[in-house]
Amino acid sequence: MMKGHNSEFGREKVYLSGQIYPEVRVGMQRVVLTPTVTVVDGQRVAQPNEPVYIYDTGGAYTDPNAEGVVRIREQWIENRKKEGKPLTQLSLARAGIITPEMEYVAIRETMNCRECGVESHITPEFVRQQVAAGRAVIPANINHPECEPMIIGTDFLVKINANIGNSATSSDIDSEVEKAINSCKWGCDTLMDLSTGSDIHTTRERILRAVPVPVGTVPIYQALEKVGGDVEQLCWEVYRDTLIEQCEQGVDYFTIHAGVRLKNVDLASSRLCGIVSRGGSIMSRWCKIYNRENFLYEHFDDICDILAQYDVAVSLGDGLRPGAIADANDRAQFAELETLGELVLRAWAKDVQVFVEGPGHVPMHKICKNMERQIELCHGAPFYTLGPIVTDIAPAYDHITSAIGAAQIGALGTAMLCYVTPKEHIGLPTVEDVRQGIVTYKIAAHAADIAKQHPGAVIRDNALSKARFEFRWRDQFNLSLDPERAFEYFKQSGKTEGNFCTMCGPNFCAIRLSHELKK
Amino acid sequence: MMKGHNSEFGREKVYLSGQIYPEVRVGMQRVVLTPTVTVVDGQRVAQPNEPVYIYDTGGAYTDPNAEGVVRIREQWIENRKKEGKPLTQLSLARAGIITPEMEYVAIRETMNCRECGVESHITPEFVRQQVAAGRAVIPANINHPECEPMIIGTDFLVKINANIGNSATSSDIDSEVEKAINSCKWGCDTLMDLSTGSDIHTTRERILRAVPVPVGTVPIYQALEKVGGDVEQLCWEVYRDTLIEQCEQGVDYFTIHAGVRLKNVDLASSRLCGIVSRGGSIMSRWCKIYNRENFLYEHFDDICDILAQYDVAVSLGDGLRPGAIADANDRAQFAELETLGELVLRAWAKDVQVFVEGPGHVPMHKICKNMERQIELCHGAPFYTLGPIVTDIAPAYDHITSAIGAAQIGALGTAMLCYVTPKEHIGLPTVEDVRQGIVTYKIAAHAADIAKQHPGAVIRDNALSKARFEFRWRDQFNLSLDPERAFEYFKQSGKTEGNFCTMCGPNFCAIRLSHELKK
Repeated sequence: MMKGHNSEFGREKVYLSGQIYPEVRVGMQRVVLTPTVTVVDGQRVAQPNEPVYIYDTGGAYTDPNAEGVVRIREQWIENRKKEGKPLTQLSLARAGIITPEMEYVAIRETMNCRECGVESHITPEFVRQQVAAGRAVIPANINHPECEPMIIGTDFLVKINANIGNSATSSDIDSEVEKAINSCKWGCDTLMDLSTGSDIHTTRERILRAVPVPVGTVPIYQALEKVGGDVEQLCWEVYRDTLIEQCEQGVDYFTIHAGVRLKNVDLASSRLCGIVSRGGSIMSRWCKIYNRENFLYEHFDDICDILAQYDVAVSLGDGLRPGAIADANDRAQFAELETLGELVLRAWAKDVQVFVEGPGHVPMHKICKNMERQIELCHGAPFYTLGPIVTDIAPAYDHITSAIGAAQIGALGTAMLCYVTPKEHIGLPTVEDVRQGIVTYKIAAHAADIAKQHPGAVIRDNALSKARFEFRWRDQFNLSLDPERAFEYFKQSGKTEGNFCTMCGPNFCAIRLSHELKK
Repeated sequence: MMKGHNSEFGREKVYLSGQIYPEVRVGMQRVVLTPTVTVVDGQRVAQPNEPVYIYDTGGAYTDPNAEGVVRIREQWIENRKKEGKPLTQLSLARAGIITPEMEYVAIRETMNCRECGVESHITPEFVRQQVAAGRAVIPANINHPECEPMIIGTDFLVKINANIGNSATSSDIDSEVEKAINSCKWGCDTLMDLSTGSDIHTTRERILRAVPVPVGTVPIYQALEKVGGDVEQLCWEVYRDTLIEQCEQGVDYFTIHAGVRLKNVDLASSRLCGIVSRGGSIMSRWCKIYNRENFLYEHFDDICDILAQYDVAVSLGDGLRPGAIADANDRAQFAELETLGELVLRAWAKDVQVFVEGPGHVPMHKICKNMERQIELCHGAPFYTLGPIVTDIAPAYDHITSAIGAAQIGALGTAMLCYVTPKEHIGLPTVEDVRQGIVTYKIAAHAADIAKQHPGAVIRDNALSKARFEFRWRDQFNLSLDPERAFEYFKQSGKTEGNFCTMCGPNFCAIRLSHELKK
């Protein structure tokens, strides 16, 4: 194990090596804890507290010893090419091959279990089986060697995606790259670059070369930009060239709105909020202009042929997702989901990894139906939802309205949650909004992991609560999702450690009384 | 109808009068909307949008025409005294009497339905039946005439409580009163003054005379303060005198930790976080010091005799609630709940209104069991929970970890949700923390109302989404839970109205494209 040190929050960067592939080195954060001190017969007795291992998406940015971004997958990809092996994780898994990426994610998902002696079913072979069955996806373009492998699937830790990207009216490249890097430090598992403004290519290039997580895009945005924003000018050729351009750059997954069918577009016309997916509205408009079937649907096999050459995964966009509580679970939405199920099979036939996007705005009593229909129609491919937002009445707080829905659908089996920031429905997120969105979604994902009784999920909760009960304030905050913010609030409250807090004062501290009870 | 005007956010204060009691005047916020403008054959056509009525807890503070706090219930209480009627809403309901308070809450709960033509089962007679059955509580001390009646029960809108109050180490009276008034403006349904510092009596007096919502307290705090913070000195006589003092002042409900039984205290000793309820830890300690049964349990009938004279409701405290995920749903917790069920019957026998407090820290997969056991053991008395918090790992974000749990347990039937602020586990909340806590809990409560399919709950969502779809930005924000914050973010994004936003820019606006589709 190599070490780095991030002393401010008691965190060390540690690496664990693979057994199948010794060159696999998985970075994690180790939170070093102070001992529990008790007084027995007038003597101070210190009992050590075991360190806690935290899943780390920060790559080189959380390792003070790292010298820039590491091209971690470069040699693995080279080896496969030399050996003439197939290129997608799906085809390799189906051929019975455990790749370095598979061992990487197996270690990554279980490091906290391993060190705490908790059993986990997640082995490299289990990962291979899940990928082979299409129940899990490792998005990892052969041209994105900087990407640390991660896995999206119901039987793994729930993941979160952060959306960044500029628009025609705001933001510049540097600030998008800053958001991207910070997102990784705060814990996003994948990043989507949704840029629609100027310099789309360069923005993406800068992000891809900077971040250690898989990057997703919606290629129709750049295709539309190429034709001057005129939907009528969109065509398969422009789209195909855009796909190839982005595959070459190293994008790891594409949201493709191939499920928006000509026959279903009108189903959305009676809605309160119509079509709120950008890709969905673009393709719907195109279908209506030409009264023709969506070219993404018609060329879906061609798309998969391209993606298979780079091992780019497909995220099947839900172009007709509901944009208001009133539109949830309607015919338009479920008709599209049926098509997405069909497309899952077509992707698998081409050895392309695939997952399925979901809503949106859904009231709590209709969330379960979304998961049920997805399981029923999509053959076990992972589900990836945006929220869902459970009430429409809180613009400026939609990270919260959506985290309520996200935690629930995550507990039901959704594999990845797309974050929502406080600026949703209002404008593009600032760096602080991105932080709020990510931490809020880490909460939803972790709460879902606990509810699913994922192996080892409660280790961190229990260590933090033990620290809380023992007034080990630093340990409590070091173990938290956002130590910096917790310390900031702690200082604001005018409190510097000790056996009670400003909430209660010394005489009303329940924990203090609770300790006296134990004596 | 009388009117006030709060032009900044398109809101007017309006009053609706009773039919049984014409002197009943229920204040609501009416959000006036702009028309929908479309262009038909080159002509601008304006179609009006009906105003939306919002439940309002702001009393005089949201009515620019009001001259100070109104003693709204003064005459009703006087009349009952003159007529020699019994005093508690429960005894009156049982006697078949619909009180002005009952008509008030019936109007208050259904005003949005009435104006929109949605049917609601909530009539004054329904309210009476629910109160008579103990399924709902109207906390309203005869000495708190400033209190606008509200109802807590599964078949009504989910309510939220905000905790305020100083401690020995922080805050002064003025800032607590400011928090109290702001809390009402932002939407809290009840306020608990949890002061434990100096000037407890005066702080409470100032708050009671200032706010239009029911006020709750935990009398054991003041009792403990009276004996110098020494648990050993606590006794029934000091507690009884404190109860009477607070009843005289006008407190509407008391949290009483009578369920902490000597035989159950040790059940909490094997926990990760022991006892985290302040009242619970105080009473546990008292029981252990004297090896005697909790005097609140032993004197519970005497307590109810006092409360009945003032119509103060009992909130049965869950002194052994879990303070960590690891401690959820354990024997200590459910053993206490059994006692609370017994105490519900004892309160009802004395004509005292009663509800039951619940946890705390509970992972999502264990939330349902809490509601089930409460229904099973507590004879239909309303449930009032603190969150629950669904993961321990996010200090500084516990308003969110708990809103996830609160929304779920609210949808399952919990009648009132006690808010949690970002400072939970860290310190006392600032005014901004209180705002965050309240808006977050309004979200959870409203999401639960929608999930329960409460009559009229979605009216506001639908109006807001319609405004969103029609680019009526002002209407969208005026209808939101926190218009001020939404406008602030909107301005930050550099956007001043128009048919797209900074999120997407003009070419990528899904709603704009969706409009073109409709044409």
